[in-house]
Amino acid sequence: MGIFTHDIKTMDDLFVHTLQDIYYAENQITKALPKMAQQASNPMLKQGFEKHLRETENHIRNLEEVFQKLGMEPKGVECPAIDGIIKESNEVASEVADKDVLDAALIAAAQAVEHYEITRYGTLVTWARELGRNELVAPLERNLADEKATDQHLTELAESRINRAAAH
Amino acid sequence: MGIFTHDIKTMDDLFVHTLQDIYYAENQITKALPKMAQQASNPMLKQGFEKHLRETENHIRNLEEVFQKLGMEPKGVECPAIDGIIKESNEVASEVADKDVLDAALIAAAQAVEHYEITRYGTLVTWARELGRNELVAPLERNLADEKATDQHLTELAESRINRAAAH
Repeated sequence: MGIFTHDIKTMDDLFVHTLQDIYYAENQITKALPKMAQQASNPMLKQGFEKHLRETENHIRNLEEVFQKLGMEPKGVECPAIDGIIKESNEVASEVADKDVLDAALIAAAQAVEHYEITRYGTLVTWARELGRNELVAPLERNLADEKATDQHLTELAESRINRAAAH
Repeated sequence: MGIFTHDIKTMDDLFVHTLQDIYYAENQITKALPKMAQQASNPMLKQGFEKHLRETENHIRNLEEVFQKLGMEPKGVECPAIDGIIKESNEVASEVADKDVLDAALIAAAQAVEHYEITRYGTLVTWARELGRNELVAPLERNLADEKATDQHLTELAESRINRAAAH
């Protein structure tokens, strides 16, 4: 995409640009998750990150299916949003020494990542319908459902800390 | 916050850091929204951005109430996540000439902003409960409810385009 060249002319162009954006984001997330799993202390959180890494690899394959259906080679475009979210996660994690506080920070960082993915997949599903490309909806909805389930799981892990704190 | 100085030692520190993060983010959003309202063509979208600007100013006051209850001066910390989300929104918008495609891009950008706020307020509400600071929950929940309602309104605007496209 050029700078100020008005390269996005149609809804098809905007759809492809956003598909490339989330393809880049998913690839960045596969790089970030192993470190997050390594930093986590709570075994359920650690396992959750490891499971989410396998799911993310699957999401990349689902996106490649969408590119294929469009007759395009899979390609990413730089995504300052996910770069910023991952940068912030790394910065905060580097400031925390206590294991339990670090777990809380990692849950929050992972939920910020999930919400970015939820919003992008929600948008792509809606645009696929607007474009009448219903064959693209299923793989995008599979990814959307996984991200929502992961976010819900992280919320439960975060809320389980409230009961534990109250018991102390 | 220093770099690699382990300045976040406790859950209280992590809570305050995240409060400062969203305080910075809300302030950046008040700067971004007038431009988004100006760029929008659909009158409902334009009005939505103007309404959200007034709500955002109110969210800042709610956050100042939380700082006050903590006995602290309101202060922001740099938030690479919201900076990245707003940067990406500006970059994509600058690439789009067609008014109707630009509206779709603006809705998607605004939903990415909403989801960042939803995840941060969700985290802060949970942490306030974990810390037993129930007096901080109400103002944070008010902001969370507004962000969810705005996201839902944007989804409805995005989905209304599907029916219109089908009618063409």
